[in-house]
Amino acid sequence: MFLTRKAEFSASHVCANPALSAEENFAIYGANANPHGHGHNYVVEVTLEGEPDPVTGMVFDLRELKEIINAEVIDPMDHRFLNREVPPFDTVIPTTENIAREIWKRLAARVSSQNARLKNVRLYETADLYVDCGEISETPCN
Amino acid sequence: MFLTRKAEFSASHVCANPALSAEENFAIYGANANPHGHGHNYVVEVTLEGEPDPVTGMVFDLRELKEIINAEVIDPMDHRFLNREVPPFDTVIPTTENIAREIWKRLAARVSSQNARLKNVRLYETADLYVDCGEISETPCN
Amino acid sequence: MFLTRKAEFSASHVCANPALSAEENFAIYGANANPHGHGHNYVVEVTLEGEPDPVTGMVFDLRELKEIINAEVIDPMDHRFLNREVPPFDTVIPTTENIAREIWKRLAARVSSQNARLKNVRLYETADLYVDCGEISETPCN
Amino acid sequence: MFLTRKAEFSASHVCANPALSAEENFAIYGANANPHGHGHNYVVEVTLEGEPDPVTGMVFDLRELKEIINAEVIDPMDHRFLNREVPPFDTVIPTTENIAREIWKRLAARVSSQNARLKNVRLYETADLYVDCGEISETPCN
Amino acid sequence: MFLTRKAEFSASHVCANPALSAEENFAIYGANANPHGHGHNYVVEVTLEGEPDPVTGMVFDLRELKEIINAEVIDPMDHRFLNREVPPFDTVIPTTENIAREIWKRLAARVSSQNARLKNVRLYETADLYVDCGEISETPCN
Amino acid sequence: MFLTRKAEFSASHVCANPALSAEENFAIYGANANPHGHGHNYVVEVTLEGEPDPVTGMVFDLRELKEIINAEVIDPMDHRFLNREVPPFDTVIPTTENIAREIWKRLAARVSSQNARLKNVRLYETADLYVDCGEISETPCN
Repeated sequence: MFLTRKAEFSASHVCANPALSAEENFAIYGANANPHGHGHNYVVEVTLEGEPDPVTGMVFDLRELKEIINAEVIDPMDHRFLNREVPPFDTVIPTTENIAREIWKRLAARVSSQNARLKNVRLYETADLYVDCGEISETPCN
Repeated sequence: MFLTRKAEFSASHVCANPALSAEENFAIYGANANPHGHGHNYVVEVTLEGEPDPVTGMVFDLRELKEIINAEVIDPMDHRFLNREVPPFDTVIPTTENIAREIWKRLAARVSSQNARLKNVRLYETADLYVDCGEISETPCN
Repeated sequence: MFLTRKAEFSASHVCANPALSAEENFAIYGANANPHGHGHNYVVEVTLEGEPDPVTGMVFDLRELKEIINAEVIDPMDHRFLNREVPPFDTVIPTTENIAREIWKRLAARVSSQNARLKNVRLYETADLYVDCGEISETPCN
Repeated sequence: MFLTRKAEFSASHVCANPALSAEENFAIYGANANPHGHGHNYVVEVTLEGEPDPVTGMVFDLRELKEIINAEVIDPMDHRFLNREVPPFDTVIPTTENIAREIWKRLAARVSSQNARLKNVRLYETADLYVDCGEISETPCN
Repeated sequence: MFLTRKAEFSASHVCANPALSAEENFAIYGANANPHGHGHNYVVEVTLEGEPDPVTGMVFDLRELKEIINAEVIDPMDHRFLNREVPPFDTVIPTTENIAREIWKRLAARVSSQNARLKNVRLYETADLYVDCGEISETPCN
Repeated sequence: MFLTRKAEFSASHVCANPALSAEENFAIYGANANPHGHGHNYVVEVTLEGEPDPVTGMVFDLRELKEIINAEVIDPMDHRFLNREVPPFDTVIPTTENIAREIWKRLAARVSSQNARLKNVRLYETADLYVDCGEISETPCN
């Protein structure tokens, strides 16, 4: 069984590879390479896999899950310029793919319990574009 | 191929294990343990797996699917206090996980046909919290 | 200029007039008259009218607005059975109309400032049904 | 890792098998068999599977993906009567299942790259009804 | 106070003035002038204005409102080609504006009661485009 | 009658008054005062008021409206850091209120026609927070 909780944060980012020229970055990322940055209301869906505890009927404590997501993702990333303020995005290009991977890394150990483990991280950059990072992918994100 | 139909019902519930004290239940379920109950607009997504019939081009008759969901889920659960009026929630704690399991049990045999079988039940308690119950999980719900 | 903030709470209610018989209440309210109660994820949109402060560029302090909505509406109503736990719904039938009116009464004085005043309260019972209570109506709600 | 992009088109269709009588078609498809046609705002979600390129941090070039979806799906299907103007729907009944299959066929080769390949096509006919066509299904759509 | 109920229907239409040439119609309506028609999932929001009845706490009987909307709008327009099957769209161009006006005309007298009257009809053609027809407009729709 | 078209842009901003100290700005704007900026997917709804043209049945040419919104709002603001790249936000604090006002100023003359004029600009900063700027407000935005 899967349990999914959704959360949201507002951040800005620049997509550019510092090893490339401005022209090369614009050719790859288009307006996303604007060095001043631009922003999104990112929506993250964190999915755990597990079976309900026979006593509580729950896969994971919902308030604890919310606190973990807040502590590891929302508090450090919300209202931030990712490239300048949130490692590893000083060296890792904060594409939606790479942000989802980073969220996976931050959460995987924290949500592992007797009953549950991290299954998937979905990250919406806009309502029309999102990525899924999970073991369901051939190359796991962890 | 998967075919998914969405439906909605409004119900109230209490999450508390009668074998535990009020304090223990509040520690586990927080405000969800309020014995007066509280409610949600539950949204259920029922997914069938199958291949389109060569004659009709359809995995399952859409009106029949709607009628089955109404007869097994919406009619008995809508506008009800689950713990008091909808077995087995008199003895099974109506967490989102357990309600999804019950919906799976009610639908699995009914939607089984030559072309299709139940693949997944997704149940939203709120827009930010949902569970998936399906054979895709390691321990099937049926 | 209008400024609107949205919030959500989950509650249960019964719509029935105690002065009427069970049959009469069922004739008026249908399944909403079920005495065990049923529930909704209510969504409230609180709209203030005012002009942006010349220094801050804001109609109202957004964090203060969120705190007022939490203190007056979300905290007392979330995860509650309105008829039994939230006055005046022990004596006032908690139809969507009457809940919106009560929210207006709780907020109007609190959000009144030099720059702003309460303009409208919109309350969604489900995604398909909502009411607006505001001075825009011929009979103001306060 | 999965990358999903959403797009929308407005089209009309008739669901009827020309080998059957009008009565038989109405029995199978209901109002969908109305020969004048009726329409929907179809929403398509195209999912690629792949690993981010080590240089760009991206699974697929987002602008190229948008252009491919526009060229293969949106431009030929938007504002069209599918049965009369968009082959193969002159001979294939445009159920949601069959439209999803056709979208899969049009996209699979085009989005195949060193890093990525088509994983799933989800097609919403309405907000309450959608199909998934992908290799995740037992019988692939290609 | 306002009470709003939402409903949905799927229809197809052509936007073209028969007094104009095909070229002129294409210049005005673009792809909407395609004579084969195309379709939408129209969403209609019907808003009544009134004060809650002192006995029931309701502006209008919700089931009756649903029945009126179904009888006057959903049943005759759902799964129809408006220009060919739903008068007056054989002679009135079914732009979103004109469909909203027609819905106003069909509902205004039916929802008029001691407590309530029709205030506004909002019609979404897509999620990104809608019209409002109501007395709030300078030229009422009735 | 009102006609509304929705559009979206992704931008970043800082809310801080340069005449105030960092501490004062943080006290007023909280995390919004972070000088590195943060971002949002802004959604703008542009509403025109007018009567349908008797020949076309339309309040305003929909493609022209889209082009005006793109030219005046989306193209100059999308993927931009508003404070640094989009005047007047080098000197006007880009609160949601002030961005909505600026959009009003950019559109009012452009959408004025024989049949229509700008009625309202709604700007969502997030799904839970939006402002309306229009003549419906006591102090018009133009």
